[in-house]
Amino acid sequence: MPNAETAGYQFNHTMVRVKDPEASIKFYTEVLGMTLLSHYKFDSFTLYFLAYDHSGGTQTVKELKDSRFNREGVLELTHNHGTESDPAFSGYASGNSEPGKGYGHIAITVPDVTAACARFEQLGVPFKKKLTDGRMKDIAFILDPDGYWIEVIPPRVILGPGDE
Amino acid sequence: MPNAETAGYQFNHTMVRVKDPEASIKFYTEVLGMTLLSHYKFDSFTLYFLAYDHSGGTQTVKELKDSRFNREGVLELTHNHGTESDPAFSGYASGNSEPGKGYGHIAITVPDVTAACARFEQLGVPFKKKLTDGRMKDIAFILDPDGYWIEVIPPRVILGPGDE
Repeated sequence: MPNAETAGYQFNHTMVRVKDPEASIKFYTEVLGMTLLSHYKFDSFTLYFLAYDHSGGTQTVKELKDSRFNREGVLELTHNHGTESDPAFSGYASGNSEPGKGYGHIAITVPDVTAACARFEQLGVPFKKKLTDGRMKDIAFILDPDGYWIEVIPPRVILGPGDE
Repeated sequence: MPNAETAGYQFNHTMVRVKDPEASIKFYTEVLGMTLLSHYKFDSFTLYFLAYDHSGGTQTVKELKDSRFNREGVLELTHNHGTESDPAFSGYASGNSEPGKGYGHIAITVPDVTAACARFEQLGVPFKKKLTDGRMKDIAFILDPDGYWIEVIPPRVILGPGDE
């Protein structure tokens, strides 16, 4: 609960490792519409910070970069150099099956789930759960280039009986 | 990048599975200062939605609940019933070691990293990296009750040379 000691805390970002940053950046910016706020290259890895630019694209490069640790809803992608072309690299665990189960997914809220999913289909995005699958008809799951699950939801979801 | 088709998209939440919701809710609300927006119990699992209530605690229960899929910075915890008391349950993977490597961490931005870490130490929170460890002296990593990594960062971090 809010208290004096934690006032000003923000849930800034979620980090996942990606095999091929080119494919991932393309997916998160072109398919999901995020903006690359900044990236920083170390010797053996590069960090990419992405988020929705709700200013409508009016922020300067400096403003985007300065916001990477000072807002909520940021996605950090870590690329360990070489994984994208290493035939011995078998890929990262999605977190949704053994071994490695724990992490589940990120979720994107979209104003129109039906339109969003139709567009994802048209763009060839793989689905884990289409709107028509299962019981919950207003929730879908798509897969990012590494196979991480991304839930696609409307701004208001009724999870089941009694949840009003 | 922002475009007409993805306008209004939000990075709503990140989901991780937790062994014992009582311990996790206590940690995320009392230690990290998040607010429980809502929870929903299914037959075999319960979902908990938490986030920072930047209204300063003035939101009604209904407003908090309605916001769970309509804002950024939400954390969803999934509790599969029984894990908290099952001696055969060995715990969830953090995502940061093999097998299961992929997911990395969530990060909390805090106005005063030194004060925050002093408080975490006083509360007995385990650290993966104290401020004094390693090269980056303004970043710490703490562990949540399941061993998931949580980065603690100031609103502005310079990652290294050339990153201004």
